[in-house]
Amino acid sequence: MPLSTDQAAEIDALRAEARETLRPTVPALEALLYKALPVLDHGFVRVIDYMGDDGAIVQAARVSYGRGTKKVSEDRGLIRYLMRHRHSTPFEMCEIKFHVKLPIFVARQWIRHRTANVNEISARYSILDKEYYIPAPAQLAAQSAVNRQGRGDLIEGEQARAVLDLLRADAERNYADYEYLLNVDAEGNPADAGRDGLARELARMNLTLNTYTQWYWKIDLHNLMHFLSLRADPHAQYEIRVYAEEMLKVLEAWVPATFEAFCDYRMGGASFSAKDLEVIKSLIAGGSPTVESSGLSKREWTELMAKLGRE
Amino acid sequence: MPLSTDQAAEIDALRAEARETLRPTVPALEALLYKALPVLDHGFVRVIDYMGDDGAIVQAARVSYGRGTKKVSEDRGLIRYLMRHRHSTPFEMCEIKFHVKLPIFVARQWIRHRTANVNEISARYSILDKEYYIPAPAQLAAQSAVNRQGRGDLIEGEQARAVLDLLRADAERNYADYEYLLNVDAEGNPADAGRDGLARELARMNLTLNTYTQWYWKIDLHNLMHFLSLRADPHAQYEIRVYAEEMLKVLEAWVPATFEAFCDYRMGGASFSAKDLEVIKSLIAGGSPTVESSGLSKREWTELMAKLGRE
Amino acid sequence: MPLSTDQAAEIDALRAEARETLRPTVPALEALLYKALPVLDHGFVRVIDYMGDDGAIVQAARVSYGRGTKKVSEDRGLIRYLMRHRHSTPFEMCEIKFHVKLPIFVARQWIRHRTANVNEISARYSILDKEYYIPAPAQLAAQSAVNRQGRGDLIEGEQARAVLDLLRADAERNYADYEYLLNVDAEGNPADAGRDGLARELARMNLTLNTYTQWYWKIDLHNLMHFLSLRADPHAQYEIRVYAEEMLKVLEAWVPATFEAFCDYRMGGASFSAKDLEVIKSLIAGGSPTVESSGLSKREWTELMAKLGRE
Amino acid sequence: MPLSTDQAAEIDALRAEARETLRPTVPALEALLYKALPVLDHGFVRVIDYMGDDGAIVQAARVSYGRGTKKVSEDRGLIRYLMRHRHSTPFEMCEIKFHVKLPIFVARQWIRHRTANVNEISARYSILDKEYYIPAPAQLAAQSAVNRQGRGDLIEGEQARAVLDLLRADAERNYADYEYLLNVDAEGNPADAGRDGLARELARMNLTLNTYTQWYWKIDLHNLMHFLSLRADPHAQYEIRVYAEEMLKVLEAWVPATFEAFCDYRMGGASFSAKDLEVIKSLIAGGSPTVESSGLSKREWTELMAKLGRE
Repeated sequence: MPLSTDQAAEIDALRAEARETLRPTVPALEALLYKALPVLDHGFVRVIDYMGDDGAIVQAARVSYGRGTKKVSEDRGLIRYLMRHRHSTPFEMCEIKFHVKLPIFVARQWIRHRTANVNEISARYSILDKEYYIPAPAQLAAQSAVNRQGRGDLIEGEQARAVLDLLRADAERNYADYEYLLNVDAEGNPADAGRDGLARELARMNLTLNTYTQWYWKIDLHNLMHFLSLRADPHAQYEIRVYAEEMLKVLEAWVPATFEAFCDYRMGGASFSAKDLEVIKSLIAGGSPTVESSGLSKREWTELMAKLGRE
Repeated sequence: MPLSTDQAAEIDALRAEARETLRPTVPALEALLYKALPVLDHGFVRVIDYMGDDGAIVQAARVSYGRGTKKVSEDRGLIRYLMRHRHSTPFEMCEIKFHVKLPIFVARQWIRHRTANVNEISARYSILDKEYYIPAPAQLAAQSAVNRQGRGDLIEGEQARAVLDLLRADAERNYADYEYLLNVDAEGNPADAGRDGLARELARMNLTLNTYTQWYWKIDLHNLMHFLSLRADPHAQYEIRVYAEEMLKVLEAWVPATFEAFCDYRMGGASFSAKDLEVIKSLIAGGSPTVESSGLSKREWTELMAKLGRE
Repeated sequence: MPLSTDQAAEIDALRAEARETLRPTVPALEALLYKALPVLDHGFVRVIDYMGDDGAIVQAARVSYGRGTKKVSEDRGLIRYLMRHRHSTPFEMCEIKFHVKLPIFVARQWIRHRTANVNEISARYSILDKEYYIPAPAQLAAQSAVNRQGRGDLIEGEQARAVLDLLRADAERNYADYEYLLNVDAEGNPADAGRDGLARELARMNLTLNTYTQWYWKIDLHNLMHFLSLRADPHAQYEIRVYAEEMLKVLEAWVPATFEAFCDYRMGGASFSAKDLEVIKSLIAGGSPTVESSGLSKREWTELMAKLGRE
Repeated sequence: MPLSTDQAAEIDALRAEARETLRPTVPALEALLYKALPVLDHGFVRVIDYMGDDGAIVQAARVSYGRGTKKVSEDRGLIRYLMRHRHSTPFEMCEIKFHVKLPIFVARQWIRHRTANVNEISARYSILDKEYYIPAPAQLAAQSAVNRQGRGDLIEGEQARAVLDLLRADAERNYADYEYLLNVDAEGNPADAGRDGLARELARMNLTLNTYTQWYWKIDLHNLMHFLSLRADPHAQYEIRVYAEEMLKVLEAWVPATFEAFCDYRMGGASFSAKDLEVIKSLIAGGSPTVESSGLSKREWTELMAKLGRE
């Protein structure tokens, strides 16, 4: 369970107070607001606030005085048109804010997306909680033999147990030593009156990269979709992909027409090079292009055939 | 009057529909929402949407589960602390969206702030309305003799009349010729069946820089304050400053504690160099520093004395 | 000719002084450095400085101590891989700086790309030169009947002459009136001692949108390619496309391996939606998909067929 | 020593090949180019490339055809003017690229500056080297009693030894276990043919936050100065400040006039609020303002007095 009773109570308090607004609202997203959607063993994603809806995209694209919407079907068509032609600015007119709890090694991948606003808890200022990520047995994959940055077969049985025991033992010990360095007990009080605690900004260096951190993360819809297209992709590391998958559910609740276009054009779509297009045209014309005739490298050919479902 | 009856009706319709939300709301800003705050002769600023309030800044700074607020006085103190130490990220957690109507030469200054999202009406796609900015007589200033990018004395009487007549005549003629080039009448219908209209994307080049354009403009609170500190400054050109001044009122309604800190630290504050500080310390100690002893240039000395009210 | 003799002399002086550097250099780009590549009737693009080359992309991707390059063929393969998989950060490690002279209405499209650094001449501070863009007869297109933001047939004969005369007369008059407002003669000296000149920041509003402006514009290679993919595209307005086309030549001289991959994957490539892919797979399998069976709108179907060369 | 012989040889090779260029060069920076400036126990900062010099700032500010420089004293005055009035865009016209080796907990602070381009070595793809940061005894500070994110007195003697032993032992063990998880020996070869190695993207989670990482980091001069003003500040954590201090030396070699203005206006300067200014004016006038009369909080008063050297 990622939440303490206090935290759950704070969230309940937020969900108890409805207010009036003249702004556009999205009931399906209001239903999710503030709730912690669990991810991994101790993580979560929570929607803290949002601005805009599908209609706000149309309104901005038309620079209109009112809602800017015409018929639902026309709005849907316009959103598809904007997505297809990569007219990104109307999507930038919607904004969403998340509270995310995630392991530090995941946070380090995540932060590479620079077009978001971030407030992270400071381990210079605060003592981090004793929470670290241990993979579920189903995620304990060996290094891939073919893909230098991918996973291969599952590690199982004794070997798996050894891996998990080691990860757990190291994280436990390093956290205990972190407390020793800080000279605090589990409640954060001085453990030993006879010595000083090391500065927090130094002690944190002893923690392992699977320790959980938290941040507020705010992003516009265009950049969120860019993030999701990379991080919900099958090539993304599992531990960040599961966050992206929860956020896809949020996207669907928030802006259903945009979500549909995003799934069709981005998540389910594909890009081809000029050389790829020649191969495709030849195949359609009944030709028999080969890797040699195509001018593609072997790797490019394999990737192209995979996209065409011809593996 | 900047709004047509249709436009006013669209705005009224937006203001008529209150909805329920669990998000933080700001009644003082809701009272302004969608309304056109008039600027210059045909321009306006309208708030279209907002995300967050003073409490959201505190909440993000504390990465909290609930509102994150403690006592009002503590929140105010924290906001002042964040402003004083230029901790900008918590302010980035609030967002606001405006609809602005403004002369093109003002838009060209405005767009230099790159940290905002923008959707402008397209004069490739649409025909621009016949609206152009003519300065009020009180703004008709001569070129400054001392400041190459400033205004000097007022131009008055006959000379003023000549200037205004000329600006008006040129804008009128160029707009009429724009319509001729497009081959449209005042309702946008073909004016002369016997000839083609020039492509809109070409015809627009005949318009003058005081023609009004419009855009949706969305920005986070930190970058909005940066924009306002530059554009509400007395050195900013009058025609953009009046927009910034309306937006300051919006800021005050939206985030009053932040507004207070912003006025104290940014708008009313000042920065000093190391050399300036030496002069100040000497003055406090009862010394009589001079431009020569200070190591400052004449211009720097004058600027320093002005900041200290010793002109 | 876009350059005065003084300007040409300044450029020659820059090209006369070779220096020693340990940085990577690109002889093909050095050959272009500082030269004004003419665009439109008075515009140009000049490369002012650059950082990095194809090797710098490889070096950054490998975070290497030395050049990071292996065999040329491996480097080319890595660059193609990075381009294909949209790994954009290594391309961000190269930077280029241009001096561009361009009509204001083109500058307004251009500035929408916010990921560049810009210094524009200030018409608050300086008096703009008397230079305005008049389209060549071959560019005088009528408004398209099918595409609201496109061009249709050429306007020719008498009608063309009328259009050009009008554009020229309005620009001439508005510039003359700009000088009158400023109270300056052609050399920038006071024209009439008996009256004040209007402030420059006001007088500029009387200029037409085809007046030329200038700026320094600096951008990284990744964002430059994004700019070029949009602005060298056939759907871009001709008047900005010609700038992009000159910059493509610069790209080819600067980073030939990247240029090749860019042409193959971006300029010559295409993206397809999930529904598009189903149609393609069906066509390859010898099926006869129709707009109805595909679930695509008529417009989407037409766009898909065009991409497949089946119009 | 932070460099292996191979790495040192690669750097020597880079420094051995001078080339001709027409671009501006900075001999004092060329003298530093590629060299590893050591920081902490295993880290370094290396300049990989640069674009522009002091003259390029002036040239961009004047949007000039040639160098844009007049007399050296005028250029220096212009640079001071631009710095004083926070005209940031001309400084954005210079760019620099670093290779940095730094502990992960430092990298996590550093990356919060989002206006740079980054390529970091990937621990999904590669095995990180066995290098971790252990503070020098002189840096082993206790938690500050007054500043929640600062350091207090030095920890010495037995206590210090215990802290260092523990940090070293945990980093050693966790790295050894990382190798066990990966099933590699010190040369990166399979250690035990009888079992699979855990995927690199998972094994890395066992490393401690003082493990060293590396990246290429590229930034424009304006944003570099913003970074340095925060990270070379006495309030910054020592472990990042030492990097900033090396980079200040680079700044001085690269753009000496800008460096001088930066030291005077930013590093040595100070900002005051409107209320602060009232206190200062009162002090200059010989008054005796107090914390009560000033309207400042106790903390604000203390900070003000510190800036005025009246502690």
